[in-house]
Amino acid sequence: MAGEPAVVLVSGGLDSATTLAIAVSEGYQAYALSFNYGQRHHVEIAAARRVVAALGAVRHVVLDIDLRAFGGSALTSDAAVPHHDSVEDLGPGVPITYVPGRNTVFLSFALSWAEVLGAEDIFIGVNAIDYSGYPDCRPQYISAFETMANLATKAAVEGRQHLVLHAPLVEMTKAQVIRRGLELGVDYSLTHSCYDPDPLGWPCGTCDACLLRHKGFAELGIPDPALQV
Amino acid sequence: MAGEPAVVLVSGGLDSATTLAIAVSEGYQAYALSFNYGQRHHVEIAAARRVVAALGAVRHVVLDIDLRAFGGSALTSDAAVPHHDSVEDLGPGVPITYVPGRNTVFLSFALSWAEVLGAEDIFIGVNAIDYSGYPDCRPQYISAFETMANLATKAAVEGRQHLVLHAPLVEMTKAQVIRRGLELGVDYSLTHSCYDPDPLGWPCGTCDACLLRHKGFAELGIPDPALQV
Repeated sequence: MAGEPAVVLVSGGLDSATTLAIAVSEGYQAYALSFNYGQRHHVEIAAARRVVAALGAVRHVVLDIDLRAFGGSALTSDAAVPHHDSVEDLGPGVPITYVPGRNTVFLSFALSWAEVLGAEDIFIGVNAIDYSGYPDCRPQYISAFETMANLATKAAVEGRQHLVLHAPLVEMTKAQVIRRGLELGVDYSLTHSCYDPDPLGWPCGTCDACLLRHKGFAELGIPDPALQV
Repeated sequence: MAGEPAVVLVSGGLDSATTLAIAVSEGYQAYALSFNYGQRHHVEIAAARRVVAALGAVRHVVLDIDLRAFGGSALTSDAAVPHHDSVEDLGPGVPITYVPGRNTVFLSFALSWAEVLGAEDIFIGVNAIDYSGYPDCRPQYISAFETMANLATKAAVEGRQHLVLHAPLVEMTKAQVIRRGLELGVDYSLTHSCYDPDPLGWPCGTCDACLLRHKGFAELGIPDPALQV
């Protein structure tokens, strides 16, 4: 018997690849959703396509949305991505790579698609342990979005749908995320995390995303397969 | 002194025109936001541009977003818009013109822009009295979105921003909306409400939006200026 449908947000990074693998392992029919949102490189859309193809999804939609129209982030403007010597140098504040409202916009589209599909489940790979401090990655944000979602849709209000927002990685360290993904057969060589890759797509190694990814593999004592040549 | 910035959602209809007029009358510097979301006609974008030009806004952004990728509504697919003989024939259920997740998607973009602008105020012209029963027009939905928004943004979490979602029409009848707009000098001949206009943009007169609009002008005993030739 076919499983229940679920919308899964897939960026092409390590976290969302693991999240997609978890959804599939739990028997959901995954409807993968990615965004071309004016980020500075298309490397991550290519990674998202590879990840979805490898892990399996009923359908993959890549939506074009123009967050560049508003600016306000190093990922959607010409501002420089910050680089650091080590993961200990990541400051306590929210860095300039934060994209205002991004997860809210992404989850809103996921909600729209879930309602059309009759899906009750939405998966997002946010993480509030080894992360950059983005507010829209925290459990209290996820919970508030879920509450709002259940007041937003026709199906929920008519009692035919109870939306559940799954954030299976939210309390995991990066090493725990990778361990779980490896158990599920995720090929991390397909994923891309770097905010500031070189023109060939090679990761910089010193942005927040690279440093957090490196920390995860280092804690497990295994090499990052995306860096093997 | 210049007023505070506010993001105002403007569809080109009667309600959002009135909402923009209210925001301007309260001294806000309006940043108007409209969407080309795969609705079946561009008449409403043209109306939004006219309304914004007439009422005044610091800036008007029209974003392209592809809700057609999901379907699920008469407004974003080839399904027929329902027509009725009178406003009494509008049923109790949510009609097929409902676009899944629409206001959540619209408000998410407004939130993103508000954070970039440093704006604490977002205006939306939803109405839960003379309306089609859409779940995302009700006060409890608006309140839940506001709660979520204050957990979503960097500025809110850092205590520099308290977002307020203004829905000044939510408890008004359509006649009350029109009366308030006329007091503020809104030219309703610039607005467009019909879900199913003819190829020249002329309203059908029998869709939910036309019937509710007609009811409002009829209760005030004045002609609808959009229908004067």
